[in-house]
Amino acid sequence: MNIREVTDGDFEGIWSIFHHIVKAGETYAYPRDTSKVQAEKIWIKAPRKTYVVEAAGIIVGTYFIKTNQAGPGEHVCNCGYMVAPLARGQGIASLMCQHSQQQALELGYKAMQFNCVAASNTGALKLWQKLGFVTVGCLPKAFFHPHLGYIDAMVMYKWLTSS
Amino acid sequence: MNIREVTDGDFEGIWSIFHHIVKAGETYAYPRDTSKVQAEKIWIKAPRKTYVVEAAGIIVGTYFIKTNQAGPGEHVCNCGYMVAPLARGQGIASLMCQHSQQQALELGYKAMQFNCVAASNTGALKLWQKLGFVTVGCLPKAFFHPHLGYIDAMVMYKWLTSS
Repeated sequence: MNIREVTDGDFEGIWSIFHHIVKAGETYAYPRDTSKVQAEKIWIKAPRKTYVVEAAGIIVGTYFIKTNQAGPGEHVCNCGYMVAPLARGQGIASLMCQHSQQQALELGYKAMQFNCVAASNTGALKLWQKLGFVTVGCLPKAFFHPHLGYIDAMVMYKWLTSS
Repeated sequence: MNIREVTDGDFEGIWSIFHHIVKAGETYAYPRDTSKVQAEKIWIKAPRKTYVVEAAGIIVGTYFIKTNQAGPGEHVCNCGYMVAPLARGQGIASLMCQHSQQQALELGYKAMQFNCVAASNTGALKLWQKLGFVTVGCLPKAFFHPHLGYIDAMVMYKWLTSS
């Protein structure tokens, strides 16, 4: 597997993953009917950097990195990660999260924050914890899950530097 | 004092408050050098609604309300409040926060969240607690204060409806 920065021809591959995951409405706080144009803005244009993971020339994962709050909060970044449904269980999310922490440091960030991890997304919660993130907050009923209704959302955080 | 929705002529009054507070860099996660154009985008154009508090025809306070996260998170709103330095201690922040909770319900929101309250902003923390908000999270060293350095930022939250 190869991880690299996004290029012009990558959006079709990203969109097929994005659309599948966001349409389900179970993990990401984006509208379930997010359009292709909006998705490109969210995932590629608005963030500071976007990366893709390729296996045999196919995009199997993607993540972005952006500044979470401006000014006095600009040393904290935020990332979003997506893995193609057929490529789950191969450590791609873990690979991307580790890569993103390194990129964050290179971009000058000191910490990384996930703002809204659905409590039902136990796979993600466990993985981020394993990779050093701490659940620093719980937002009661902040996420509307299509099958479970209003569920809690977690705020996760990791200080990345030793300084 | 009169609280009403913003109109075209209000931005000069808002800007004088915004600029003073944001330039200090002690409370809001906006760049300290935020321009007038950027400020109008942040405070009036991007939010769903903006309000001003007038006393004797002068704007002494202002707040916005916007959706905090999209899609599955769109029932939670976020607000920002600013009081003119010379008008502090008159209950204007309290008036605005109570007004905003009512407006939030009318706009269909079910909860309100403050994402990044600097730990040093004890006046705000106490006031929001008094008005029913709970500190649901602490982001370690997430706010860079110009005099105190890296300090914690609090995530505050209130469920607004009985349902």
